[in-house]
Amino acid sequence: MTTPPKRKRDRAATRAALLAAARARFTLVGYDATSVRDIARDAGVDATLIFRYFGSKERLFEEASQLLREPVDTGTDDAPAYLPTRLLHTAMRQDEDGTAGGQPLTALLLSSSRPQCREQLNSQLYDTYVRNFEELVDLPDRELRAELLTAWLIGINVARSIAHTPALSDACVNDITPYFEQVAALLLGTPPPGESSP
Amino acid sequence: MTTPPKRKRDRAATRAALLAAARARFTLVGYDATSVRDIARDAGVDATLIFRYFGSKERLFEEASQLLREPVDTGTDDAPAYLPTRLLHTAMRQDEDGTAGGQPLTALLLSSSRPQCREQLNSQLYDTYVRNFEELVDLPDRELRAELLTAWLIGINVARSIAHTPALSDACVNDITPYFEQVAALLLGTPPPGESSP
Repeated sequence: MTTPPKRKRDRAATRAALLAAARARFTLVGYDATSVRDIARDAGVDATLIFRYFGSKERLFEEASQLLREPVDTGTDDAPAYLPTRLLHTAMRQDEDGTAGGQPLTALLLSSSRPQCREQLNSQLYDTYVRNFEELVDLPDRELRAELLTAWLIGINVARSIAHTPALSDACVNDITPYFEQVAALLLGTPPPGESSP
Repeated sequence: MTTPPKRKRDRAATRAALLAAARARFTLVGYDATSVRDIARDAGVDATLIFRYFGSKERLFEEASQLLREPVDTGTDDAPAYLPTRLLHTAMRQDEDGTAGGQPLTALLLSSSRPQCREQLNSQLYDTYVRNFEELVDLPDRELRAELLTAWLIGINVARSIAHTPALSDACVNDITPYFEQVAALLLGTPPPGESSP
């Protein structure tokens, strides 16, 4: 048995702690109102490590605010019918690593007075949601339909994590799924899940 | 004929110019990144007038970011069927006074790292949308259904004015209305417009 490479393990753990602390702060107050000193203190390390591991506050933000991605499975017949539901689950998933969390989409929105953050928001929304929804549509207004459904995911996130409207904040993903599936079927013109293989 | 009260007229015009300039700035970069000096320069007046007319930057923000309200007409039989459409039009209406504009909802979102702005956002969403949608619902999950439709209005605003997704940014309210009416009927359980008086 060899000794585990302690320095490498520490580096990975510190990096993960910094990312989690950054995500929590950025989700709460956005880029401008967050200081690297606060993030480092939350992670229990010296602020110089942020620059050593990430290069800059900008780079740390970019990495901390990556939207969660769902691997898109088109291998089975009913995959298209279930894709919207799976993307809803992805959009609502909270970080579950037990340390700290926060929705990357919220961090991007609260920071979007910065042009770079608006660009990141635009391209990530396209890659994560719009493009996948578009591929399901075989009707006129393909782009508009895909963006309208993406807009709903954005709004559900904002209502829960920024505006704190009570019923949506208390709802779990299973409470929202039946409504989302019906609206997705209506907007995209896809069969609702369960109706694709008669 | 008496001379018009010039001083009073100037005061009203200056106040309106300051509000328009404030709305444009707050909608672009939010509360923190906006200075009263910039607003005053845009309005072509001295910054001290902001404090004379509004008292503080906070009070100016509160007034500039009031969501547009739609008078709710319940006097006719088909009013409930048309209410969602009218609220969509309100939510998408740009300021049309020819000076400067901006969506108050965008200003609130970009400023919502401030707790006061989150509270204003929460209470205004309730008064302007959630409460009105709730009154139309006669089904289980009344609050959730009303908040889900409100969330969609929020998301459409964010997609157009912050994330700039292309199809929604190019769309006019009439492009979105047919989709909105169908989804509103589905979520609220109301008849779509035109079907209420058979």
